[in-house]
Amino acid sequence: MFVHARRNKEQIEMNEVLNAISTRRSIRLFKPEQLRQEDVDAIVEAGLYAPSANNAQNWHFTVIQNSAMIEKVNKWVLTEIEMSGNANLQEMIKRGSGSIFRNAPTVIIVSTERKDRFGVINAAAATENMLIAAESLGIGSCWIGMAAILSGSKNVESYARELHLPDGYAPQIGITLGYKEGVTPLAPERKPNLVSYIP
Amino acid sequence: MFVHARRNKEQIEMNEVLNAISTRRSIRLFKPEQLRQEDVDAIVEAGLYAPSANNAQNWHFTVIQNSAMIEKVNKWVLTEIEMSGNANLQEMIKRGSGSIFRNAPTVIIVSTERKDRFGVINAAAATENMLIAAESLGIGSCWIGMAAILSGSKNVESYARELHLPDGYAPQIGITLGYKEGVTPLAPERKPNLVSYIP
Repeated sequence: MFVHARRNKEQIEMNEVLNAISTRRSIRLFKPEQLRQEDVDAIVEAGLYAPSANNAQNWHFTVIQNSAMIEKVNKWVLTEIEMSGNANLQEMIKRGSGSIFRNAPTVIIVSTERKDRFGVINAAAATENMLIAAESLGIGSCWIGMAAILSGSKNVESYARELHLPDGYAPQIGITLGYKEGVTPLAPERKPNLVSYIP
Repeated sequence: MFVHARRNKEQIEMNEVLNAISTRRSIRLFKPEQLRQEDVDAIVEAGLYAPSANNAQNWHFTVIQNSAMIEKVNKWVLTEIEMSGNANLQEMIKRGSGSIFRNAPTVIIVSTERKDRFGVINAAAATENMLIAAESLGIGSCWIGMAAILSGSKNVESYARELHLPDGYAPQIGITLGYKEGVTPLAPERKPNLVSYIP
């Protein structure tokens, strides 16, 4: 693997940014205690500073710390998956714990303007900023892609209202956040041959 | 703006990760000198460590440092925009410098598997990682969303071959990279009311 062969481990370990990026993992076991407000603020702020096409910033973040509301959103997603007939998703749910958000004390739903063709791409950039910011604060996180199923639902306007979204917005990505419980596993091996050079 | 009101500037400035995220800007003026290989490697590595749906890592990065090839890809995009009849894009090109990549000495094209519905989202996460990594190394970058037009072209397979992509992959996002020329402007103001809390 040429990248690993050339990689300067010391350089990366000395650079906190590169270090956070390469040690960030999807975390699915959280301590029950709630995040400090200043940590939530720093994570949200990182999301808001993501780039967006034409600097539109046409996203909305719903920060949910109410466990009944987290469970409600979970139920929405499980019901949509059940109705979708998508066997892969149904299988993933069956293998899971009954909650796509596990026991995370904080969930952020990232929503975008439905008419914007770059909306989901912008949301992904904001989400990745928030995951890296969380890692830098010692907070575990996981990208919950299944939340996207809400955006295609016939109930999307009702979901949008309950998530306090502006008109014309739809939920696209979920983020779970919490202090990490247990030992974080190593990053899975990167696959080979993913990069070409035209020097 | 509640986020700015509560923001703890000192906390953010002491955290190199939060600092890189909030000071990163789109840079469009580059010094002519080429990037050091170790910097390119660190940036590419950061992209490879992005999360992907089901950890598929089904992306491909083409690192182009050959100026004739950069100009060739630029011509592809300009020609596709010309043929698209999209007046907004045509207007953006007219206002631009004749090159979507400006004078960047390095361009990375991020490509994804065409059949994967999460492909573009994965590519966006990898791209954001690379932009933040670049910022941490003092390197300027810009996300070139217009490159997505190549993925919908009837010539996509020819483009894919010239970019050394695996079968079934298509280019989605461009990244320009170079050492910054001149003074970096401040980040544009974040818009208000983009966050709701359900405590």
